Amino acid sequence: MPRYALKIEYHGAPFAGWQLQRDHPSVQGAIEDALARLEPGPHRIAAAGRTDAGVHALGQVAHCDMARDWEPFRLASALNHHLKPAPVAIVGAAAVDADWHARFSAIERQYLFRLLMRRAPATLDRGRVWQVAHRLDAGAMQAAADLLIGRHDFTTFRSSICQSASPVKTLDELRVEEAEGVSGPEIRFHVRARSFLHNQVRSFVGTLERVGAGAWSPRDVRAALDARDRAACGPVCPPQGLYLARVGYPADPFAAQG
Amino acid sequence: MPRYALKIEYHGAPFAGWQLQRDHPSVQGAIEDALARLEPGPHRIAAAGRTDAGVHALGQVAHCDMARDWEPFRLASALNHHLKPAPVAIVGAAAVDADWHARFSAIERQYLFRLLMRRAPATLDRGRVWQVAHRLDAGAMQAAADLLIGRHDFTTFRSSICQSASPVKTLDELRVEEAEGVSGPEIRFHVRARSFLHNQVRSFVGTLERVGAGAWSPRDVRAALDARDRAACGPVCPPQGLYLARVGYPADPFAAQG
Repeated sequence: MPRYALKIEYHGAPFAGWQLQRDHPSVQGAIEDALARLEPGPHRIAAAGRTDAGVHALGQVAHCDMARDWEPFRLASALNHHLKPAPVAIVGAAAVDADWHARFSAIERQYLFRLLMRRAPATLDRGRVWQVAHRLDAGAMQAAADLLIGRHDFTTFRSSICQSASPVKTLDELRVEEAEGVSGPEIRFHVRARSFLHNQVRSFVGTLERVGAGAWSPRDVRAALDARDRAACGPVCPPQGLYLARVGYPADPFAAQG
Repeated sequence: MPRYALKIEYHGAPFAGWQLQRDHPSVQGAIEDALARLEPGPHRIAAAGRTDAGVHALGQVAHCDMARDWEPFRLASALNHHLKPAPVAIVGAAAVDADWHARFSAIERQYLFRLLMRRAPATLDRGRVWQVAHRLDAGAMQAAADLLIGRHDFTTFRSSICQSASPVKTLDELRVEEAEGVSGPEIRFHVRARSFLHNQVRSFVGTLERVGAGAWSPRDVRAALDARDRAACGPVCPPQGLYLARVGYPADPFAAQG
């Protein structure tokens, strides 16, 4: 059975999340339905990151097993045809070995979080950013973020329903960038690790926003981390600013594409 | 009667255009309805550029006359409150002289047009870009664009329903920029003039796309301009990539804002 890696972009708003759910639209379900239009199913696909409701992806990766050989470019085109009008697109496809796994072969995940700072409601960027009415101190946020880099017990920044075996993870990057977006000044968080706990990025961003607003000091963030207590976390921010940006593998399956 | 200038951002998709229409939602109608919630009407507002259905604005400007004095910041906040959930936001407000006019005082309009070049359908940028599946030659497009700069009879690039008194306009800028957007490689057209004919920007972009694709040469564009004949125009491109980016005045009424 030939296996294919799929690079997937989606707008998270209409979905209850990546994962298949009974009676709720999911990204996984949309793609499995499209696969069933190409070859009789059932199809079960696995993804590198199971994004929550409202979370977007620029470069989610999943794999699927097909009965017959597909030219990867044709597979992507056929899936995109059947995915319409759902805001899900296969932006890359590649043949991979039978033991390659979108989730278990991944060695890195990168997330982007967009935070818009302005008073007037977002229009063109609605549903694509988290918006706050006040300006934030990016320097203070970066100072606090630096305290989270490295290997830590992240129990504080993990949702109570997280299924990860251990709360100990290594955070490789948490960069706070000031940027001028189309709708105004933004803070963009660039977050990178081998793997993440459930709600970890949104717990980071919600807590760092409190630092940027002056309500918390970087030292408070350090104390929250050290507490290893979910109750010590700042507010978890909403999902619509979050993007699964990229998944890393020992060898990029999509490298051969233009 | 105190007069206020309003800087307005909107997503064009749900509207039949800027201009008030019976039985169709319009941006003008949405704002006039919000004004009526603040002071009894009727309210009639005038805008610098009457954008078509599906066209967006980052910096449309209009003016309104109020019965009582409003602190401009409070006026914007109150309008934004009543505009919800329409994707229209007042992003600036300023008191202006009674003879200041959003349309007639304007001395410059700037448009942005976003063209996404990729095969997979846009998801996050759906409705915000015009998409073509092929790559375009930006150098050839710029060479053709350069031939349109300056004072010309633009009859070729003017819709048949254009109400402008004369087809002679001066085009100050038509810059073709290659950019990497969130969804992939884009061509961004930056277009600037004192004023425009109806459908002029979309006629330019549709024609220049043909040059970028190799179907037209820059010389063909010159011949089309010289023909002064609407039938000589290339295809008019769709509206969803077009943004009214900025309106210029002899003195920026919003300059005092942070």
